[in-house]
This record gives sequence, C-alpha cells and structure tokens, in this order.
Amino acid sequence: MSIGLDELGLAARNHGFPLEMLREPVTPVGLHYLLIHFDIPAIDAATWRLEVGETSFTLAELQARERVTAPVTLECAGNGRALLGGERAASQPWLIEAVGNAEWTGTPLAPILEETGLADDALEIVFTGADRGVQGGVEHDYQRSLPLVEALRDEVLLAYEMNGAALPPQHGYPLRLVVPGWYGMTHVKWLRRIEAVQEPFGGWQQTDAYLIDDVPVTRMLPRALMVPPGIPDFLTRERFVDEGPRTLVGRAWSGYGEIVRVEVSDNGGTTWADATLEAPLGEHAWRGWSFEWSPAPGEYELLCRATDSAGNVQPLEGVWNHGGYSNNAVQRVRVKV
Amino acid sequence: MSIGLDELGLAARNHGFPLEMLREPVTPVGLHYLLIHFDIPAIDAATWRLEVGETSFTLAELQARERVTAPVTLECAGNGRALLGGERAASQPWLIEAVGNAEWTGTPLAPILEETGLADDALEIVFTGADRGVQGGVEHDYQRSLPLVEALRDEVLLAYEMNGAALPPQHGYPLRLVVPGWYGMTHVKWLRRIEAVQEPFGGWQQTDAYLIDDVPVTRMLPRALMVPPGIPDFLTRERFVDEGPRTLVGRAWSGYGEIVRVEVSDNGGTTWADATLEAPLGEHAWRGWSFEWSPAPGEYELLCRATDSAGNVQPLEGVWNHGGYSNNAVQRVRVKV
Repeated sequence: MSIGLDELGLAARNHGFPLEMLREPVTPVGLHYLLIHFDIPAIDAATWRLEVGETSFTLAELQARERVTAPVTLECAGNGRALLGGERAASQPWLIEAVGNAEWTGTPLAPILEETGLADDALEIVFTGADRGVQGGVEHDYQRSLPLVEALRDEVLLAYEMNGAALPPQHGYPLRLVVPGWYGMTHVKWLRRIEAVQEPFGGWQQTDAYLIDDVPVTRMLPRALMVPPGIPDFLTRERFVDEGPRTLVGRAWSGYGEIVRVEVSDNGGTTWADATLEAPLGEHAWRGWSFEWSPAPGEYELLCRATDSAGNVQPLEGVWNHGGYSNNAVQRVRVKV
Repeated sequence: MSIGLDELGLAARNHGFPLEMLREPVTPVGLHYLLIHFDIPAIDAATWRLEVGETSFTLAELQARERVTAPVTLECAGNGRALLGGERAASQPWLIEAVGNAEWTGTPLAPILEETGLADDALEIVFTGADRGVQGGVEHDYQRSLPLVEALRDEVLLAYEMNGAALPPQHGYPLRLVVPGWYGMTHVKWLRRIEAVQEPFGGWQQTDAYLIDDVPVTRMLPRALMVPPGIPDFLTRERFVDEGPRTLVGRAWSGYGEIVRVEVSDNGGTTWADATLEAPLGEHAWRGWSFEWSPAPGEYELLCRATDSAGNVQPLEGVWNHGGYSNNAVQRVRVKV
C-alpha cells in the first residue's frame, strides 16, 4: 500500500480523530474528523442569509426558533478507504480515524420545511453550501439532497453550535445540516440554500460520488473502535503494555440502529468475548464499551467488532469498491506485552 | 513520491493547517497544525503539579503570577519533509502546512528559573512532558532542553491559554512551553517537570532527532505562504481563477528576525516582484503581505518567497537531509486563469 502526492495533500489538509480521545464521550473541538472538499469559505454571519425556497432567514431568526441539543456521531463515508486493497479512485486516504461525536445545537428542519411550503409535493430537498470547487472535472457548489421523508425526520437539525459554542469555521460556520445516522457527506456545511425538487437531484456529489455500484451510500454501517492500550511507537503506532489486568475501552456506533453487542478478540479474530456496554449517550451517538483483559507476556492482535439492532455485524475484511466507501472492517491493534 | 502505511497513519492522525486560513491573523482553534509524537495524555488539572527543581506549582499558582499574552507563530521542524527528494527517515510526511499562529497566554519562565535557583550554574534547562512512548527503539518521556541563555529570554512562556481559552488537550493542557522563534519540537506540551542540568542533555528527542548532520535544528528558517487564489480542484488542489485584477494575500515568518521582504513570481521563479508588507502583528508572529495580480488567461505557477532581517532568503529547492528537517523551499501553486 502506498499513496501519491495528491492523496497525501488531502491527508495533510484534512484531519483525523486521534483514537486515544475515544476516552471522552464528547469530542473536543479540534479533534473531530474533518473532510473539506474545497476551501473553508469566509462568511460574514451579519449579512449571511439562509434561503429556503422563496423565504430567507437570518442567523438570529433561526436561533430564536425551537432549540435542540443532541450528541451525534459523524463518520466519513470514506473511512477505511486506504485499507481496501486493489485499484480505487484517488481520494482522501482515511485509515480508520474519520469520526467524531459532538453536541450539536440547532433548530429542527421539519417545521421550516412545512412553514415554507417546501414539504408540499417535494420528492427531495436539496441543500447547498457556500463551498465551491472542481471535482471530477465539474465545477460546482457542494450540494446534496435528501428524500423528503428523511428531511422531515424530527432529529434533523440546522445546527449553529458545536459543543456549546458557535460552529468553528471548519465545521460549517454559521450553519450546517445534521442528519443523525447518515455518513458525513450528508451534513452539508456552510449551508446557504434549501430548496425542494420534484425530480431526483442530479448534482455531482449526489450522482457521481458516494455510490457503490450505482447504489447511494447513506447510513453509517456499525463500527467499534478501541482506545489503543498502553503506549505507542511513534511511527508504527504499535502498542506496548505491561503484564497484568487492564480495562480496554472504546465506543461503537451504527446508523441502522442501537449498538447491541461489542466483542473483543485478543488472538486476531480466532475467538471472541463480549464487552460490557455502557448506557447510551443518545439515540444517535456512539456507545461506550469496556472489556477486562489480563494478558500474559507476548504479542497480540486486538480486534473489536460491533453488532447493531438491525443485525449488521462488522466484517473481518472490507468489501472492495471503486470509490472506497463504507469499509467498516474491524479495527486491528498490534500490542506487545 | 509515494508514502507507505506508517507515514500515512501519521498524516491521518496529525493535523495540517488549511492554507486558505492564512486569511486570518490568528489561527482558530482546531486549524493550527498538530504533531503529537505519542498519545494525548489524560491530565486532571486539579491534581497536576509542575515540578521545577525541588519546588512545585499548581496551575492556580502559575495563573496568579505575571500574565503575558503574545501572538507566536509555530512551525514543525519537519515542515516540507515529504517534498524533499531522495531516501529519508520515515516520519510525519508534511508538505507545507505544518504551521499556525495563536495568541498564547502564560507566565514568563525566567523569573521562575531565578526564584527556584535553577538559573544558578545550569548549562541547560530540561523540560519534560507527560507524553511517553517509543521512538527509534527507545522508550522515553518526551523531553527537550534549552541552553540557559535561551530559557532565560523574556519572551519564553509557560502557557496555559490559547486564543483566550484554556489550552485544548491536543495543544498541551494544562501547560506548555512556548519558545518564540524556535521550531515546534521545542514548545514541550503537557509540561510536568523543569530541571537544570550541568552537562549537555542527551535525551532521545535532543540527540537522536532534530539534527541535520549532527547539528541541532533550532530556529525557524524564513517562509512565506499564500492563500491559494480562486477555487480548488478537490484532489490536485490546482486553482481556477477568473481573468482580471485580484489581490494575492499571505503571511511570512522567520525565527531569525523580522520579515523585511516578500516577493511573488507568476512564472515559476523567472522574475519576481515585491509584495506589500503589513504592519507586524508581534515580534514573533507571522507578517501579512499582499500583491496585486492581473493575470491574462493561461496557466501559471505562482511562487512567493520571504527574506528576513538576518539576510536569510528562501531557496527555490530544499536541501536534502536524512531527517527531512527545515525544508523552507518556496511554495508553488498551480493556477489556471
């Protein structure tokens, strides 16, 4: 596996989540993953408006509406891409670290769609960001659509705060969409326009990307991650731990339902044992888990895997696809005791 | 140029600065570059103490001392590493984005060294962080030393705030060293001990890393960076701009003195013209610059280069060294008008 200069430029520019911070239920600002397609736009919130069909809203008007705060786990649809073998489209080369869990505060979208009439007769709702660039040879604003029924879900927010403060520029200031359960590409940042369409939306980010064999990528498949135990090697991130009992901890999430099981293997997947699940943080947030482990001296490959209430289980190996999407193969951590 | 899985893991885990944010004089939290050798340690500030020789300080005691705020530009000594040709030691594969400029608040170090007696008879002052791991086959706490004369400089701070808020975990909470003018490895994060030594300090990070042909890397060489104009291609970051006049902007810094000149070339370095320098933000912060550019349609390679008051000028090509340090070759931005 090796990557070239273009992918390295994306890896340097975008930000992964350092796995030791799985110890925190809410990801501190600056440690949440970031995938920015084009540039972070410069927006003056004083003159910014959100256009919704024929109507528009100031930030203060949105902030004066019903206010909801929820912890929501976001993961990039390309998480795991660089670990898929074979030829694939060049893109952000994530290993396993494109995730974060923030407290998002905003106002529900559904009442706005209803008041403005966008919910009438729409097939899809289209969300447009202020970020513009070229991808796949096509110049476009970043745009994604949602089927009306998804856009009307109670928990979909127009978010203006992250972890109790105004959105940072890199997370969509002054306003972003939050669609709990869906991969990150859906949560349009720097939102500036919402409109209804009667035909399927054909924008580049909708119909030329985020597809596996022409099927759109939507919700997050289940994944469990652990805090790598002990201390690391700088370069290889191999871990060194002392002999004797210790508690392994981590978090797991799925866009298809509650996490109902996390299992741990210390022999590369030959045998598995159940971890203990913590109380949920929220319906759409990752769930903590812990596992008591007493290793004898030796070398181990630690794995963890999640199962959700819809019956999805993480695979041992990811399934190749050209775009490198949805690779939720189990995490593998090499440990020397 | 290609990189392997270990270097990719570091690129995903550590964070680069997105160059469009050069438009801001102070880098927002979460966009400053991050290079974390081991793991971000979990520290309880309530029980944390800074040991200084035989003395110790609580965070409140340090916060009750003289309080200084200064904008200071930090750059990783490995910035530019991945753009150096040839065989080199595997490490964090930065291109050009390992920089940031924050407002650091803390208390001056020198009075503490004097009160505690560490300034008497010391050859060097050694700073120890709470982060521990293995590098180059050697397990160690992250430690760096400074010659006494450098440690006693008025502007060296024990910093507990960044941009007016408590240090984020990833920037050294609750306390880090800030040594204006020096590369980032010197600004020890998660500081827990300061001691005086009478012999040259031989810790791994001091004598096995951050050397060019056995000469320690210390201060930042000059560098100018520009906000890439226009809009980007997602993958290549090539830029697309409209015909006609526009202002190119950027910032430049050096650890050897004031920035006295920034030049811009739009023909790959064949001819150069002077940019206009802004008033300095502070003695140790990057300096803004601007340049009026009126391109005709065509393809361009834009370059910028800085000169400091000590007479250092950025080279067109970096000088290879095994560790990949201090590559301050000029930035090159491909632009299509």
